[in-house]
Amino acid sequence: MSKIKVGIVGATGYTALEVARLLTAHPQAELVAATSRADDGRSLAEIHPSLAGRCDVPIEVLDPESIAKKCDVVMCCLPHGASAETVHALVQHDVRVIDFSADFRLSSLDVYEKWYDVKHPWPERVGKTVYGMPEFFAKQIATADVVANPGCYPTSAILPLAPLVQAGLIDTDDIIIDSKSGVSGAGRSAKVATLYCETNESISAYAVGSHRHGPEINDLVGRISGKPVQTLFTPHLTPMDRGILSTIYVRRGQHSADEMMQCWRDQYASSAFVNPVDHLPATKHVAGTNFVQMTARDCGDRAVLVCAIDNLAKGASGAAIQNMNVMFGLPEVTGLR
Amino acid sequence: MSKIKVGIVGATGYTALEVARLLTAHPQAELVAATSRADDGRSLAEIHPSLAGRCDVPIEVLDPESIAKKCDVVMCCLPHGASAETVHALVQHDVRVIDFSADFRLSSLDVYEKWYDVKHPWPERVGKTVYGMPEFFAKQIATADVVANPGCYPTSAILPLAPLVQAGLIDTDDIIIDSKSGVSGAGRSAKVATLYCETNESISAYAVGSHRHGPEINDLVGRISGKPVQTLFTPHLTPMDRGILSTIYVRRGQHSADEMMQCWRDQYASSAFVNPVDHLPATKHVAGTNFVQMTARDCGDRAVLVCAIDNLAKGASGAAIQNMNVMFGLPEVTGLR
Amino acid sequence: MSKIKVGIVGATGYTALEVARLLTAHPQAELVAATSRADDGRSLAEIHPSLAGRCDVPIEVLDPESIAKKCDVVMCCLPHGASAETVHALVQHDVRVIDFSADFRLSSLDVYEKWYDVKHPWPERVGKTVYGMPEFFAKQIATADVVANPGCYPTSAILPLAPLVQAGLIDTDDIIIDSKSGVSGAGRSAKVATLYCETNESISAYAVGSHRHGPEINDLVGRISGKPVQTLFTPHLTPMDRGILSTIYVRRGQHSADEMMQCWRDQYASSAFVNPVDHLPATKHVAGTNFVQMTARDCGDRAVLVCAIDNLAKGASGAAIQNMNVMFGLPEVTGLR
Amino acid sequence: MSKIKVGIVGATGYTALEVARLLTAHPQAELVAATSRADDGRSLAEIHPSLAGRCDVPIEVLDPESIAKKCDVVMCCLPHGASAETVHALVQHDVRVIDFSADFRLSSLDVYEKWYDVKHPWPERVGKTVYGMPEFFAKQIATADVVANPGCYPTSAILPLAPLVQAGLIDTDDIIIDSKSGVSGAGRSAKVATLYCETNESISAYAVGSHRHGPEINDLVGRISGKPVQTLFTPHLTPMDRGILSTIYVRRGQHSADEMMQCWRDQYASSAFVNPVDHLPATKHVAGTNFVQMTARDCGDRAVLVCAIDNLAKGASGAAIQNMNVMFGLPEVTGLR
Repeated sequence: MSKIKVGIVGATGYTALEVARLLTAHPQAELVAATSRADDGRSLAEIHPSLAGRCDVPIEVLDPESIAKKCDVVMCCLPHGASAETVHALVQHDVRVIDFSADFRLSSLDVYEKWYDVKHPWPERVGKTVYGMPEFFAKQIATADVVANPGCYPTSAILPLAPLVQAGLIDTDDIIIDSKSGVSGAGRSAKVATLYCETNESISAYAVGSHRHGPEINDLVGRISGKPVQTLFTPHLTPMDRGILSTIYVRRGQHSADEMMQCWRDQYASSAFVNPVDHLPATKHVAGTNFVQMTARDCGDRAVLVCAIDNLAKGASGAAIQNMNVMFGLPEVTGLR
Repeated sequence: MSKIKVGIVGATGYTALEVARLLTAHPQAELVAATSRADDGRSLAEIHPSLAGRCDVPIEVLDPESIAKKCDVVMCCLPHGASAETVHALVQHDVRVIDFSADFRLSSLDVYEKWYDVKHPWPERVGKTVYGMPEFFAKQIATADVVANPGCYPTSAILPLAPLVQAGLIDTDDIIIDSKSGVSGAGRSAKVATLYCETNESISAYAVGSHRHGPEINDLVGRISGKPVQTLFTPHLTPMDRGILSTIYVRRGQHSADEMMQCWRDQYASSAFVNPVDHLPATKHVAGTNFVQMTARDCGDRAVLVCAIDNLAKGASGAAIQNMNVMFGLPEVTGLR
Repeated sequence: MSKIKVGIVGATGYTALEVARLLTAHPQAELVAATSRADDGRSLAEIHPSLAGRCDVPIEVLDPESIAKKCDVVMCCLPHGASAETVHALVQHDVRVIDFSADFRLSSLDVYEKWYDVKHPWPERVGKTVYGMPEFFAKQIATADVVANPGCYPTSAILPLAPLVQAGLIDTDDIIIDSKSGVSGAGRSAKVATLYCETNESISAYAVGSHRHGPEINDLVGRISGKPVQTLFTPHLTPMDRGILSTIYVRRGQHSADEMMQCWRDQYASSAFVNPVDHLPATKHVAGTNFVQMTARDCGDRAVLVCAIDNLAKGASGAAIQNMNVMFGLPEVTGLR
Repeated sequence: MSKIKVGIVGATGYTALEVARLLTAHPQAELVAATSRADDGRSLAEIHPSLAGRCDVPIEVLDPESIAKKCDVVMCCLPHGASAETVHALVQHDVRVIDFSADFRLSSLDVYEKWYDVKHPWPERVGKTVYGMPEFFAKQIATADVVANPGCYPTSAILPLAPLVQAGLIDTDDIIIDSKSGVSGAGRSAKVATLYCETNESISAYAVGSHRHGPEINDLVGRISGKPVQTLFTPHLTPMDRGILSTIYVRRGQHSADEMMQCWRDQYASSAFVNPVDHLPATKHVAGTNFVQMTARDCGDRAVLVCAIDNLAKGASGAAIQNMNVMFGLPEVTGLR
């Protein structure tokens, strides 16, 4: 089989770099094109010197038709709003797309437009695009023209919560998600707030009660489990490059953490990446990998769930490669071990 | 007035170093003695090279009588159990003591012996020692022979919670405290778990449901507010030297975050160090200081409280200096600005 | 004596924040004014939340006459070029100035204009302004209207080198300075290069052979020792907030590291801040302080000198406070312990 | 071809973990055994939770005969002295060995015994073991029974220096190597000196003039180039997990940095991992990879060479896998991309 030809749209950021890195190790796929308005004329390795000697794809300005011709699949790493428009153009030129933005993740156009505060450029497609979590939607991903790649925080919350809600092991209206993310989640644009000396040696909560990943978590846990849930989600900026740790407080009623662990083991028995573990996971345990570690502990009438992922890998670019593998009939783990 | 003569018992650790550092800047107190079994014969600056040229107190082996003679007050930085015994001996030799251990913090001997799993060496004194939080107990601290210096996590939870519970603004039985601490809280003894490469670039929960600061928080919030409370406390190890951020989830009923802010402003109007703030506090905002920043936000039927302290300063050694100031009739802020 | 009234021009950056912080602890000086074009109408604590509750000076737009009226001394924290112009205006309105830029540090107008690639706005003053290093120039600083506050890297090189060159203990034409700085030295403007995820977990050399602090080191060591020197200076960006470590390779001829240590002890016998030490200094030993630690070791026909400072304290704002103390007849250490 | 069966002796440390990690991604090799005195009875994933779900090899106590039977090659990660003894035993049981210690790196028994201060347990083999740097010794490695895996610092110095010395582009008696290493280089044993709070936010020189990698660099550069060299080597502990940056000061005479770059390009034209680059390399550019980035700049009569590697990858375990590939006739890059 000839290699899958991959393009990256929006090549400047950390998720694009991570896709490029992962592809250098992928035996069945290769990066053939990369676009970035700001860096036209340079090479990908000039923007990201860690690719020097490994990946010399030239940066071009986005032309949907031209990139669609070169590629079997395009990873679209643009911001929301801009992304939907580009995805639309790409699909019209018959290339499959994995979209890193939130534009096609939510079921409801109203919720999207309220939380993202933009008019959606391709509203008909909202609610009809598969959510790129092969642990639940592998079948639809396999044949999708567009895959909505999951948000990083949602990945760390949906994977532990959805099976427990579905199995009726926890209350659906009293779920608190306290998440801690590395700084790469904030992107690679020049802002004072993410300068080294602002975030180093410091932890802080942000977007309390107003982060856009809150509705995404509710939507997806609900969609997967068939039960509407209400969560309180608080993200924190943590002084490290990568990783998300979500500490989740749930009401357990008569159920125990042991039952939850068993529920996960059953749910993820055939999963290549999701590992229920006995120890308390640290983000370092999954750093640079597509793995997920999760555990549960009883605490009085509540249980505490702890889930660790790498925000750039399973939380973004690793998941995208996993989705690509599913889309092209490869084993999920190809290039991800 | 002649300077307060201060001794440190157990001089090897980070809290001892922080006391010594703070005393180099204190206009009315001076370090005159320091003890450490392991480092007898060396000087304090040899153990802690950051004191070179600033503090050349020799290390001696602890002799309670001798140190009591030299000092007006002793900072006892020993581990629990060992500390109570030493405090007892020091008090018998008529020197006032600020105890950094948990030995005299709790009201109940039973609770102490259950959570700390030791026989208390001075049980009669348990429940009769003032808790060293001048924001609530300044009067008793002023005349105390022994002050139980607060735990770091409890400081970050009690200061925001106690006034709100007392004022009836939040439910007392549904309080979740998710705390993130810098690594210095784990002490300065050689352990693999706190090696640089184990904790750097990683965040993890630990002692889920079993950390000893849980009962301390419950005890003190109850003692101050007059109402028993039940909290769920989860500590996290965060890749930074110093700082604690506690994110606290409470049920607010009909009350608003604004009322909580106002309650704090009233409670802490005359406090030198506790600052209700409009922004979301980061640990960096209080690093190296005795200040406390806290804020409240409405989130549906809950409120999210965020409180930042420096675990070594207001969470330990800064609080101790503040207590010492109160004990010796000095303005609380002396040497702490 | 009434307190020294201090103004800060250019209040957004890290050196300005450090001045403000140090002044909150200074018993004989107070911050009375702060200017910043970008932040007019806000307060200093809004820009720097760590000042909340400690310093509520309002930010104004710079008007040299008005600020000169309010202040006894102005700390000018503007970039080179812009700074000289402002310093000129301030001096004309009869206020003393400590200039953080490089505009008045060098002896030679030609060298300045070559390395800084600007036309100097006040050329007559170049070469006639005292260099703010009280260890060598206290007398001139005491009466100066303008003090050129030293560069951070130069401080870490001049203090160890100048006495050794003067005493003839090392060759003057074979000096290699390999310096490692924390990221705060790069300032607080939004740049991709100093984002957390770019500099964290990474060390790199920069400006090899072309950093402007090279000529400053040569100029000052020459001026102090009376002997022209030639150095090779290479700065490195190190993943930490603060601190500079300079490792300096010199030819020792017949002289030994012990003689060098003795030379320093003699030179700095009455210095409040410069400490020759036996141990190998780490930047952590001097973090947040105005202290300097330095040591020397024999290595074959060379000696290796190691000097640690805090780049924001002794390397910038601490030195400025020290200079201010000297200018106003206070003990050098006031507010710096 | 059946997979290469690999054993690890001394499985507790970071280099062993890195070998295990790399093997999970190696298509032609598999980890089949691991030994550790301290952890007998546990699994490798219990010691290193990042291996959970990826590698469940049980830990056993070392029995050379038994492990030799199971394995085609053993990675020996023991400390010097202990290592040589074990290597001897393993070789006698006919298994090939890659030795991570320094026991067989040096040409001279005298130099070894002087610098390592032990009696060598297998002296006849000293000077007759190939140095595991395939860039220079691939042929001998291919058939070796024992390969002396290079030291981390030496790798970062030998690769840039050896070709330049050989080509006569730099003086051989005036070479200064200023190296900065991440903390993982100090190993995983519990020591106060490498606790998070001791090394975080701090950089320091150590072992000035006395580090054992100094003679290794001299020996190997000499062996490769055919010319004896004298270097001054100073290592620094840098607050990051991984990476080494070596800044090397050489005398260039009439030669230019451009000639040096060309010399490297010629030398490493067919190398899979060594990349001469135009930019100034940072350790982050090679983090987690087996790549080497190096550049040269003119600075007066000297040139400054900068070389970046990952100390655990190309500086240890990556090099070991590369050596294994060569020993077993695989392409050098197998499993390392």
